[in-house]
Amino acid sequence: MSPEAFDVVDLIRTKRDGGVLATPEIDWLVDAYTRGYVADEQMSAMTMAIFLNGMERREIRDLTLAMIASGERLDFSGLSKRTTDKHSTGGVGDKITLPLAPLVASFGVAVPQLSGRGLGHTGGTLDKLESIPGWRATLSNEEFMAQLEDSGAVICAAGSGLAPADGKLYALRDITGTVEAIPLIASSIMSKKIAEGTAALVLDVKFGSGAFMQDPARSRELAETMVALGRDAGVATRALLTNMNVPLGLAIGNANEVRESVEVLAGGGPADVRELTVALAREMLELAGVADADVEGALDDGRAMDAWNTMIRAQGGDPEAALPTPRETHAVLAERDGILVAQAALPFGIAAWRLGAGRARKEDPVVHSAGIDLHKKPGDAVRAGEPLFTLGAEDAARFDRALEALEGAYRIGDEGEPVETGGPLIAGRIG
Amino acid sequence: MSPEAFDVVDLIRTKRDGGVLATPEIDWLVDAYTRGYVADEQMSAMTMAIFLNGMERREIRDLTLAMIASGERLDFSGLSKRTTDKHSTGGVGDKITLPLAPLVASFGVAVPQLSGRGLGHTGGTLDKLESIPGWRATLSNEEFMAQLEDSGAVICAAGSGLAPADGKLYALRDITGTVEAIPLIASSIMSKKIAEGTAALVLDVKFGSGAFMQDPARSRELAETMVALGRDAGVATRALLTNMNVPLGLAIGNANEVRESVEVLAGGGPADVRELTVALAREMLELAGVADADVEGALDDGRAMDAWNTMIRAQGGDPEAALPTPRETHAVLAERDGILVAQAALPFGIAAWRLGAGRARKEDPVVHSAGIDLHKKPGDAVRAGEPLFTLGAEDAARFDRALEALEGAYRIGDEGEPVETGGPLIAGRIG
Repeated sequence: MSPEAFDVVDLIRTKRDGGVLATPEIDWLVDAYTRGYVADEQMSAMTMAIFLNGMERREIRDLTLAMIASGERLDFSGLSKRTTDKHSTGGVGDKITLPLAPLVASFGVAVPQLSGRGLGHTGGTLDKLESIPGWRATLSNEEFMAQLEDSGAVICAAGSGLAPADGKLYALRDITGTVEAIPLIASSIMSKKIAEGTAALVLDVKFGSGAFMQDPARSRELAETMVALGRDAGVATRALLTNMNVPLGLAIGNANEVRESVEVLAGGGPADVRELTVALAREMLELAGVADADVEGALDDGRAMDAWNTMIRAQGGDPEAALPTPRETHAVLAERDGILVAQAALPFGIAAWRLGAGRARKEDPVVHSAGIDLHKKPGDAVRAGEPLFTLGAEDAARFDRALEALEGAYRIGDEGEPVETGGPLIAGRIG
Repeated sequence: MSPEAFDVVDLIRTKRDGGVLATPEIDWLVDAYTRGYVADEQMSAMTMAIFLNGMERREIRDLTLAMIASGERLDFSGLSKRTTDKHSTGGVGDKITLPLAPLVASFGVAVPQLSGRGLGHTGGTLDKLESIPGWRATLSNEEFMAQLEDSGAVICAAGSGLAPADGKLYALRDITGTVEAIPLIASSIMSKKIAEGTAALVLDVKFGSGAFMQDPARSRELAETMVALGRDAGVATRALLTNMNVPLGLAIGNANEVRESVEVLAGGGPADVRELTVALAREMLELAGVADADVEGALDDGRAMDAWNTMIRAQGGDPEAALPTPRETHAVLAERDGILVAQAALPFGIAAWRLGAGRARKEDPVVHSAGIDLHKKPGDAVRAGEPLFTLGAEDAARFDRALEALEGAYRIGDEGEPVETGGPLIAGRIG
């Protein structure tokens, strides 16, 4: 398209004044931004206007398609297996992709899980897996396809060729305070997932204190928007709305989350992690045409664990190797007898981040051994002096700021007091 | 201030979510933006959030003071004369500064008029004066002060040392669709005027189709905001609200506007230009402590013209030299007998701009001879075949696009039909 086909200031004014952008205007905007005719500061004003004035469904679809068109699309039509993928909007202790991908692959389905790294208080799947000695996140296209055909499960870094406009826009939104807008989140996630070429997609859209979108109604709107975008693009899409008021499982960090995932793959692990893994696996398999799969059986009889070992080895990792543990630990003990009635996800996520499990800037490394191990979950009885949770870090100097984040984040109450979990783990299903 | 005193993303989020920025936050933001710690794309998101969510009076005052603090301040305390200045928010055919500055100076008052160049459909005072052979806009500080002390009136280019944060921010707003926000306009104008050091200031705040702010209520809000900012900073400030639905005077361009200004200085000229010049001069003189000045007398008896000649010569100009005239002209004739009932400012401004009188980009030159001469004003009787207005340009190829802009911009009606002027020229006074 010509750099002068539209005037970007006119398009910004339209959105600023609450108007609707036409399809050719959005196509031009994304193309011109990718090519650099539209400057970052102009796109930044536009995203703030979108944040505050919203976009219609048609505009969001156009934005998604334009971002897909900015790069390459993967093609799995040569595979002998059906493809199905999952995306989570991110939460505290959310390691579900780790057990889920091999579990689903153990039913003969391909799971091309292109993942990212963590930024802020939510962890990144690749960061967690890099705790495993030898494991590498980057695969060539040939390795990726061969592994999908062979073991079925691949969790690896997304190449920069998919939806490059989204990559550029996401980096801009991150530094300009425009991340949490439904049109921008939905088009960002769905442009990458559609360009990735999966035939089916299950979205884990989280709400609650530890989620991007805290409000359940807004999460539902995000989920509905994304399901519609996926279906319009020919991807069988479904979403679960899940509760992120409380950390998922007992491990928050990197290496400890891998350890917990392996427990789930061995048929054990915390009940909430197993419940969500099983529920998402059922949805993914159903969309891939595998009806009535005995998902729990595959966790209990070792099939999922076999798929995990194969997947980890295929990417250079040693599933038997010891995972890193923190040099320093600090246990926080219960001050009284009672029931743990509150354990808020966000402060625990921030505390783990401050211990070194997360990064403040894209270029920072994460500390794989750092994080938090919970010993009690909301509703559990506790006795004075029992450990509630343990912080782990490479440097004890990090404990103070982590403990600061945790002030008021948990509470021991009396028997019979209501437990603050914000409702069931799986709160709804869309599509 | 430390680059890390605040997190700009937090400040953007505060304004995005409708919150209020604290004084140290605004101080830091402007300082960090001026020094480059805050990037253009971040400031651009912030200005769009300010555009859409507004600012309280206290925030606008803080923003203004922070922009003043970003640069130097002029000091007129060494002058033997009192200083008084005027600022117009810009309009079509608005050449008032040209007769006004020498008129006021003829009463022994200093008028330090630091002006800008035009961008878009409103002309710039410096562009108009540069039609005069030899005249130069740039003066050293010493020349500026000597001329103020001597002749009293100076119209020259503002140095880049006054409120540099505003210069940087204005350039950003111009390309990101965030010009027309009251907090941003008010702080931009007033930071420069307060830094300039004038003791008194009269604002000509325009409304109507040819003004920045079309809506009279919004113009009044802008005027009230600016008057409060001036007074808080110790500048005696007043505003007139004036009607910009119809071009001011009969000349729209550069050289032709100088010609019309000289007519007013000779005691003639169009009634509306004289009326507004006289009204603004009275306000400026009153604020400077010159009560009951015979302003009309100074126009009629040559005192204002003497001050003009002195002012133009002091800056190298020859007030006797012939002004440029357009190589090509095109007269538009009345198609019927009747009354001219409509003559809309904005399309005439755009047409003059397209003829070459204005610039599309900052770095473009203007064509001093180009513009429009009106032969009739709303309410005037016209006869079929009489010229309504004449376009002038260096190249006849420009006439088509200018005439396109003028379609529907004027109308001949019948005797007794209401004339569309949008009310009186001077619609209100604030302060």
